[in-house]
Amino acid sequence: MSKILRINTRDRSYRFEEPGKYAGMGGRGLTSHLVLNEVPADTHALSADNKIVAAIGLLSGTAAANSGRISVGAKSPLTGTIKESNSGGNFCQKLARLDILAMVLEDKPADDADFCNIIITKDGVVFEDAAPIVGKGTYDSMDYLMDKYGKKACSMLIGPAGEACLTAASIQFSDPWGRPARAAGRGGLGAVMGSKRIKAIVVDDAGGERCGYADEEKFKVASKRWAEILRSHPVTGEGLPGFGTAVLVNIVNEAGAFPTKNFRGGRCDHVSEISGEKIAELITKRGGKTKEGCHAGCIIQCSQNYVDEKGEYVTSGFEYETVWAFGGNSLIKDIDQIAALDRACDDLGLDTIETGNAVAIAMDGGVIPWGDGVAAHKMLYRILDKNDYLGKIIGSGVDFAAQAFGVDRVPTVKGQSMPAYDPRAAKGIGVTYATTTMGADHTAGYAICQNLLKVGGDVNPLGKQGQVETSKALQIATATVDALGLCLFVAFAVLDTADAAQVICDMVSARHGIEFTPDDFGGLGISTLKDELAFNRAAGFTKEDDQLPAFMMKEKLAPHNVVWDFTTEELQGALVG
Amino acid sequence: MSKILRINTRDRSYRFEEPGKYAGMGGRGLTSHLVLNEVPADTHALSADNKIVAAIGLLSGTAAANSGRISVGAKSPLTGTIKESNSGGNFCQKLARLDILAMVLEDKPADDADFCNIIITKDGVVFEDAAPIVGKGTYDSMDYLMDKYGKKACSMLIGPAGEACLTAASIQFSDPWGRPARAAGRGGLGAVMGSKRIKAIVVDDAGGERCGYADEEKFKVASKRWAEILRSHPVTGEGLPGFGTAVLVNIVNEAGAFPTKNFRGGRCDHVSEISGEKIAELITKRGGKTKEGCHAGCIIQCSQNYVDEKGEYVTSGFEYETVWAFGGNSLIKDIDQIAALDRACDDLGLDTIETGNAVAIAMDGGVIPWGDGVAAHKMLYRILDKNDYLGKIIGSGVDFAAQAFGVDRVPTVKGQSMPAYDPRAAKGIGVTYATTTMGADHTAGYAICQNLLKVGGDVNPLGKQGQVETSKALQIATATVDALGLCLFVAFAVLDTADAAQVICDMVSARHGIEFTPDDFGGLGISTLKDELAFNRAAGFTKEDDQLPAFMMKEKLAPHNVVWDFTTEELQGALVG
Repeated sequence: MSKILRINTRDRSYRFEEPGKYAGMGGRGLTSHLVLNEVPADTHALSADNKIVAAIGLLSGTAAANSGRISVGAKSPLTGTIKESNSGGNFCQKLARLDILAMVLEDKPADDADFCNIIITKDGVVFEDAAPIVGKGTYDSMDYLMDKYGKKACSMLIGPAGEACLTAASIQFSDPWGRPARAAGRGGLGAVMGSKRIKAIVVDDAGGERCGYADEEKFKVASKRWAEILRSHPVTGEGLPGFGTAVLVNIVNEAGAFPTKNFRGGRCDHVSEISGEKIAELITKRGGKTKEGCHAGCIIQCSQNYVDEKGEYVTSGFEYETVWAFGGNSLIKDIDQIAALDRACDDLGLDTIETGNAVAIAMDGGVIPWGDGVAAHKMLYRILDKNDYLGKIIGSGVDFAAQAFGVDRVPTVKGQSMPAYDPRAAKGIGVTYATTTMGADHTAGYAICQNLLKVGGDVNPLGKQGQVETSKALQIATATVDALGLCLFVAFAVLDTADAAQVICDMVSARHGIEFTPDDFGGLGISTLKDELAFNRAAGFTKEDDQLPAFMMKEKLAPHNVVWDFTTEELQGALVG
Repeated sequence: MSKILRINTRDRSYRFEEPGKYAGMGGRGLTSHLVLNEVPADTHALSADNKIVAAIGLLSGTAAANSGRISVGAKSPLTGTIKESNSGGNFCQKLARLDILAMVLEDKPADDADFCNIIITKDGVVFEDAAPIVGKGTYDSMDYLMDKYGKKACSMLIGPAGEACLTAASIQFSDPWGRPARAAGRGGLGAVMGSKRIKAIVVDDAGGERCGYADEEKFKVASKRWAEILRSHPVTGEGLPGFGTAVLVNIVNEAGAFPTKNFRGGRCDHVSEISGEKIAELITKRGGKTKEGCHAGCIIQCSQNYVDEKGEYVTSGFEYETVWAFGGNSLIKDIDQIAALDRACDDLGLDTIETGNAVAIAMDGGVIPWGDGVAAHKMLYRILDKNDYLGKIIGSGVDFAAQAFGVDRVPTVKGQSMPAYDPRAAKGIGVTYATTTMGADHTAGYAICQNLLKVGGDVNPLGKQGQVETSKALQIATATVDALGLCLFVAFAVLDTADAAQVICDMVSARHGIEFTPDDFGGLGISTLKDELAFNRAAGFTKEDDQLPAFMMKEKLAPHNVVWDFTTEELQGALVG
C-alpha cells in the first residue's frame, strides 16, 4: 500500500503514513484535496501554514504510456488561489517505485535558516546541507546533485528565483538526461519551496519495485491499445514528434490569435524565423535532436534538444508558449536568443510564460527596447545579484512588473499572465483563462483544440456559441487527466478516438482493482474542480474574479478586429457545481 | 452657481459645466458619486478611463472653522477600490473663490507625453510645459511655482513617485506658507495624476469672490457657536494644539496598541524619544512653531513647524501616524531622522503611512537593518534615479515590497497598509480597517475615540462588544464630515457636544438655503458609503475582502496577548445597506 511521506521543514523530521482519507486519489485530485483539507485558505502562501504536495497520478508507476507526470500543489503566492502544476521528468516514476503516493512539505524554518537538500531513498529520508549549491543556477546544481547522488537519481529543485521567494519562481525537475529542463512552472510554487528553505529534493529509487496490478493481463491489453491510440493520431503520432509544440507558431499566427507586443496584435511579422518548422530545421542542421520524451514511457516525444551553431546543447522542453512569450509578445526575432532565454528561465528557476510576459511589460514600460533579446537575458540574470531589484521585479511576474513600471495594459487573470493564445481571437481559451481555478492557464481547458485545431469538435474561434460548454467539458476532462498522471497531450488522441476513455478506465481498473467507468472518469475531474473551487471561495475569490481585463473588451485585436465580449454571468456557465 | 471644471489631459482642452446631477453635493460625497457614475469599475486605475476628481466640501469657502479640506477621488491603483483622500492647504478655499465646485481630470495622453502644469485663474485654464520641474521634488517644485505664479497661488502637485506612477504616490498640496507639506496621501492617487502626465495644478483666485449665504445672519450665529465648540473641547482646544497629533504616541503605546517591528509587538521601548511631548519640547527649544493651521480658517492648529538644531525648517504636518510608521514600526529612534523621513516622503510625493510601513517590510526582509533611519532615507531617495528599482519597490507600498522581499507577515487590507493602531489591541479600529470601502484606513471610522480616548463613548478596546456598531456609526459620520469639507478632527468635539450636529446642519442650511437636518447629516454619510460600496462591488470586491490578514488571528500581540477574532460574518454588520 502506497504511503504519504510528510516532511517537516522546520525541525527536519519526517514520517510515512497511511493514505487514510487520501487513499484512491492521485495527481491533481490528491494535491487539490489535500491543500483544501490542510492549508487554511486565507493564510499567506509563504507562511508556515502553506504546504507543498507532490503526488503521483493514479496510473503513474505503471507501464501505461505517458503516465509519468508529477503533480505539485500548494496555495499559490502568485495568484492566492489553489494551484496545481505538473511536470515531466522521471521524478514521478521514481517516487512510485519507492511506493510513495505523495510527499508533503510542511511548516517552515526561520526566514534566514540555511537551505537544505532532502534525499529520499528506500532507506528513508536524510537532510543535507545545501550550501554548495545555494545561489547557483539549476544547471550547475544538477551537476552537483548527479555527482553526489548518482546519474540515476532524479531531482526536484529551485533556482535563485525560488530561493528569493519570487512569485514567478518555478520548481524544476530533471529530465531523463539529468538536465533541469522540466518544470512545474506556473503559479510561483518555487517561492513556496524557497520559503521552506529547501533547495532540492533528490529521489533515488535503487532497490525500489515496480508497481503491482490487480489484473495484470487486463492491464497489458489496455495499455497496448493505449499506445496504439497515441501513435495513430496525427497530433500525438506526427505533429508533436515532428516539430514539438512550436508547431503551433504558424497555426496560431495564421488564425490571428498569436499575441504580439503585449497583446496589441494577433499576428507577428517575423513568424517564419521562430516557427516550429524553423526550429526543427535548425536542430537537424546543427545535429541536435528533434524528438525526445520528457519521461520514461513517453511515446509522444514532443521535446527536443536544441543546440547552438557548434552543436552544443542549449535547452530542451522548449515549448511553443516560451517561443511565443519571448518571440511574439516581446518581439524578439532571433530564435537562438529565445532558446537562450528559455535556458535562462530553467536555470534561474522561473516560469517561462510569466517571465517572458514580464519582459514584454518591461519593454512596454521602457525599461529595455522592444525585441532586445540580449538585454532581456541580461535583465533576467540580475536575479543572481541579491542586491539588485530589477531582477526581483521581473521574477515576480506580470502584475508585479506592470505595477512597478506603471503599465496599464495587464493581460492577467487572478494575477497570472495569459499564455500564447489571444482570447479575443480564440474565445474558447478565453473562457478557460477566465474561469479556471488556476488563473489564466491554457492547460486547464485547452479549447484551442476545437477553436483552431479542430480536434474533438469544431467551434468558431471568433464566436461565442459553444465556447462555454466546450471549455467546461475540457476543464473537467483535464482535471481527470491530471489526476491520472497522464500527459495532457494525450487529450488530442482521446478526444478523437471512440474507445480511448474506456481504455484509460480499463487501465485504472486493472491497476487498482476497482471498477472505474467513463462516468467515474468525468466524476474525478468534477470532484477535483469542486475541491479547487471550494478553496478559492474560502480564499475570497468570487465570480467577479472570473473575467478578463477590461482593456480586452475595448481594444480590437487585428486582423479580425475582435474584442472580448463574454459577460461575467455567461462565464459562470463554465464552472462546475 | 458653482461649476464643474472638466479638463481633458489628452488634448489639453477644458470646459466648465453646470453641476447637473452633482448639484447639492460636495467633498467626498461628490467625488465618490462621480467616480461611481463615470469610471468603469473594472478599468485599470492608470488607464484613460480613470478620472481624478478634486471637490470642495458643502461648507468649503464659508467662514465655518475648519471647513477647507479638499477631497480627491479616483479609482485607486493601490487597492483597486474607489478612493477618497482629503487634504488641508488653501487649495480648496481658492477653488471655492473661483466658484469651482469640482475639477475633473479626464482621459490621458501617451505614456511618454511631456508633463504639463495646469494653471487655473478667473480667466480660465492654461496648460504650461512642466519641464523645469519634471523629476524634481515637491519642495523645489513649489519654489518654482511660487516664483512663477506668485506666493498666493496654491498648488496640487506630484513628486517623482507620482511621475513614475508608483502606487504609494501621494498628491501634495501647498500649505498656507507655500510648503508642499499637506497631502491627499493614501491610495496612490499621485500615480493616477502621473499617468495623466500632470505635474502640478496651480490655482490663483485673484479676482475671485467670497461665497454667498442664503441666510447670512443664521450662518453667523451658527458658525460662532461652531468655533466655540471646537475651542472648548479638551482634544480640539488643548491636546491637538499643544502637542499635535503625536500626542497619541504615549497614549497608544500605553494602551499596548502601538505596533512595533512590523506589527510584532504593541509597545515600544524608545517611546519617550519620539513622543508628542518630546517633539513639542524640541521644537520649543529650537525656536520652531508648535502650532499651525493647515488651512485658512483652522482653529485647531494641530500642525507644527519642526526645525532642526539650527532652527531651520525641516517639515510640517508631521503626524502621529508618520512618527509611528518610522519610529515604532520601523524602530527608528532618532526623531530628527524621522522628521527627515517625513520631509522626504512629502518631497518625493509618497504616502508616509504606506512608505513607512514599506520601510519596515524592507527591514523585515533584510534589505536594510531595523531602526536604520539613515539607510531608510537613502533608500527612499533612490526613487529619483529612474534606473533604480529598489526605489520603485519601496514607492509601491507594503503589499508590493512584501512580495518583492518574500515577507509573509503583511499588515494590509485590500492592498492598503494598516496605520498606527494595532487592531488586535483596539478592535474597533480593526473593524474599520476591515470594512471601510478604502482599504485599511484609520480616518474612515476612528474608533480609537471610544476604544482608547474615551471620547464619544467608552468601548473596551480588547473586547468585541459594541465595536461593530461603533465603527459603523463612525464610518457614516466620517463620510458626512468628509462631504462637508470639514477637518475630521472636529469629530472629537462633535461626539462630545450635544448641539454640535445641529449647529453643523444650521451652517449647511444657511449656506445653501436648504433644509438640512441631523437626519440628513446621517443620510449624507450613508448615501456616500453606498456609492462607494457599489463601486467596489462592481470592481469585484466582496465580503471576503473585508477581513484582516490571517497572521493577526494567530499571533498574539503583547502586552495584552490578544489576537484578532472577528469573523467575516460579524464584520459585515459594519457595512451600510
